Amino acid sequence: MKKLQLLILFTAITFLSNAQNIDSIFIRRIADEILINSKAYQNLRVLTKQIGGRLAGSPQMVKAERWGYKAFEDAKSDTTWLQQCMVPHWVRGGKDRANATIQTKKGKRTKALDVVALGNSIGSMKALTAPVVEVFDFDDLEKKKDIIKGKIVFYNYKFNPTYVRTFQAYGEASQYRGSGPSRAAKHGAVGVVVRSMSHSTDNNPHTGSTRYDEGLPKIPAVAVGLKDADWLSENLKSSNASVTIHTHGRFLPDTIGHNIIGELKGTEFPNEFITVGGHLDSWDNCEGAHDDGAGCVQTIEIMRAFKAVGYQPKRTIRFVLFANEENGLRGGNKYAEAAQAKGEKHIFALESDAGGFTPRGFGMTGSDQQFQKLLSWKSLLSPYGSCEIQKGGGGADIGPLHRTQSTPIAGLMPDSQRYFDLHHARNDVFENVNKRELELGAVNMAALIYLVDKYGM
Amino acid sequence: MKKLQLLILFTAITFLSNAQNIDSIFIRRIADEILINSKAYQNLRVLTKQIGGRLAGSPQMVKAERWGYKAFEDAKSDTTWLQQCMVPHWVRGGKDRANATIQTKKGKRTKALDVVALGNSIGSMKALTAPVVEVFDFDDLEKKKDIIKGKIVFYNYKFNPTYVRTFQAYGEASQYRGSGPSRAAKHGAVGVVVRSMSHSTDNNPHTGSTRYDEGLPKIPAVAVGLKDADWLSENLKSSNASVTIHTHGRFLPDTIGHNIIGELKGTEFPNEFITVGGHLDSWDNCEGAHDDGAGCVQTIEIMRAFKAVGYQPKRTIRFVLFANEENGLRGGNKYAEAAQAKGEKHIFALESDAGGFTPRGFGMTGSDQQFQKLLSWKSLLSPYGSCEIQKGGGGADIGPLHRTQSTPIAGLMPDSQRYFDLHHARNDVFENVNKRELELGAVNMAALIYLVDKYGM
Repeated sequence: MKKLQLLILFTAITFLSNAQNIDSIFIRRIADEILINSKAYQNLRVLTKQIGGRLAGSPQMVKAERWGYKAFEDAKSDTTWLQQCMVPHWVRGGKDRANATIQTKKGKRTKALDVVALGNSIGSMKALTAPVVEVFDFDDLEKKKDIIKGKIVFYNYKFNPTYVRTFQAYGEASQYRGSGPSRAAKHGAVGVVVRSMSHSTDNNPHTGSTRYDEGLPKIPAVAVGLKDADWLSENLKSSNASVTIHTHGRFLPDTIGHNIIGELKGTEFPNEFITVGGHLDSWDNCEGAHDDGAGCVQTIEIMRAFKAVGYQPKRTIRFVLFANEENGLRGGNKYAEAAQAKGEKHIFALESDAGGFTPRGFGMTGSDQQFQKLLSWKSLLSPYGSCEIQKGGGGADIGPLHRTQSTPIAGLMPDSQRYFDLHHARNDVFENVNKRELELGAVNMAALIYLVDKYGM
Repeated sequence: MKKLQLLILFTAITFLSNAQNIDSIFIRRIADEILINSKAYQNLRVLTKQIGGRLAGSPQMVKAERWGYKAFEDAKSDTTWLQQCMVPHWVRGGKDRANATIQTKKGKRTKALDVVALGNSIGSMKALTAPVVEVFDFDDLEKKKDIIKGKIVFYNYKFNPTYVRTFQAYGEASQYRGSGPSRAAKHGAVGVVVRSMSHSTDNNPHTGSTRYDEGLPKIPAVAVGLKDADWLSENLKSSNASVTIHTHGRFLPDTIGHNIIGELKGTEFPNEFITVGGHLDSWDNCEGAHDDGAGCVQTIEIMRAFKAVGYQPKRTIRFVLFANEENGLRGGNKYAEAAQAKGEKHIFALESDAGGFTPRGFGMTGSDQQFQKLLSWKSLLSPYGSCEIQKGGGGADIGPLHRTQSTPIAGLMPDSQRYFDLHHARNDVFENVNKRELELGAVNMAALIYLVDKYGM
């Protein structure tokens, strides 16, 4: 009996190790295909240099949709289609400007600040000047609430440099961009200047969306570059200062946008769906190269590579360029709604929206069992850079799938050190994306999609 | 008895886990110190922007030595000194030039090639023109040996893109730079053009040292940018071509150089030495920012951080800026010789000479037992990025210590994707180093040095 058990065990181990071997050979093949023949980098060049920034509702976004459709067709998509959704249509409306005037003993001194209006913010329309009150965090705001009325609040919350994963610092800092304007407006502030959510060494301001609370004045709000933030803070130690904000943001009526979807039909379980994607929209003040042109071209590249090596998936794989991650999430919501409405069974979704940097691993939101399954593949993924497999994570556009049908979701975790140097800033351009780093992201994603397709989740 | 064993085991586990806890708290403290207060980035700015390229024997290297000495003093070195050694003194001697002339049906067409003479190569002194023979590797060279005489050999060996760790591709490709000229000269070639050892998307040529074999003519040799290499190769498919090389390299008499050494004296085992370092010299055609300004400022930063948090090492820690890694290794050899001569016991050495990119781990050359010890610290290092601990590795300048007294040696392994985009090329400049990536390298190195100091190796 013991011998039989040993034999079964041995057979099982041999079987598993053969399976791992077959998997490792296939993943190597996909990796070689991508590292040698990838179209991701040249696709990104077209998207960023010929189309550029592409906020939902913009003419560039319409061009980007056409580009995405054609890119899927070129990658030999079985089926390609546009999934319509209504998207918000915020426009910057003009050049964002701000300056600070410092009252010194020798007289007044005015300096232009490098600013960018926050996305979704309502412009001052004409120049708005008011004394400035610096606060370091929300506690500090509450302490100073009695002197806020009629003032411009300067949130000077610093990006915490001690977090190794920079998204942690972003998570803390970005609340000042998101809810800072309304929290200041509650105490009578007339405008907001937010320190950019970054630890860069330059002065580029970083935009990103803000959310106004109902029932409070929608006051103008800009992000300021780090050097100017430090300069302003330094001067406020000894002087009074006023800031002038001149912005033009406004909403036009919602308009039509689309998720762009390519599909490879499953051969065994065509009614089980795996989604992989990134978002096609970007902020208007940059080329959206890392955020999230990278995720889009990686998504297209995975399809191209699967087709190039003749891979026929067991399950149906959906490749999605989402319509509106930056300021509304309407694309991601629409995708999950439509899946729910059609009764589609989505077994897994993967997103790349953390930049086209060298992959370090994946973060996953799902059950313990699903997480253990992902962990069991670590030795197959780590040769390509994914040695960090962590709980938590996924992505904004696939979050709705998880909420509506508990689909396990995962996000590619690239190296995060440089991301917030350029996130939502004018230097998020093609030149700051490295070809191989971008490709390795696609390699790791393709490997994971292959494993989920083969073994389920 | 069983109970006693369990008790001992439990006590041991508790002890170990307390020790790990104390270690993890200390490493966090060092990490915070570096991530908040690091001087590494500003030190690198001075070294690269105020001093620049600093080949052994150059006036810039003399300035760099002074800078290094002062930097250790500023970091509060217990003792700082210069360790003299003779270094080779190769000079480029002028501007490297090359062009190719293609014989087409419509006549001749000449194009300037972006080239850089290989380090240690002897210049053509006057323009040297000869027909060109393209070879793809050494096997191809041997096949074509009968048509090489009087020709310029063009080694068009491509950097293999399928290796995830780019140093593997470099290891294979760099032999064409190292021994390509002599192997071509053996068959009567009069000059060599080598495809740059890189997978970059630009056309910058990459230098690096070559070695002439005794008894063979020392023929001029240049590296050519990748785009020009592809252009030349493409044209050679249908046309004959000649190449003109005009270089000026030569050796002056050996001169005096120095390893710059700072030391923190051990409190318990002052006669056991731990070395950490990088090399101060760099090629002359760039700022040597990643190679190896990064390793130097990380080395200095570790000392600064140890002092700043009041760490008193048990063992004596030597911080070394080596004199001559690029074209002679005289500094590393001198250091090991002096250690041997004084009977110093060197228990561990660590080098950073693979760029100032985000750390991914360490590579180590030592006994299995020593490797297991390093592995046992992985959970302490991985929160800071070091999740890849591999056998093999160390560094050129600490290799002699391993050879003379079997000192276990390790090398920091930063992410390698961008290194060969700029290695030995004009774009190895300060602007291409990211502050946080540089600092995280220092964090991981400091953590490892701390662990070796505390527990031995």
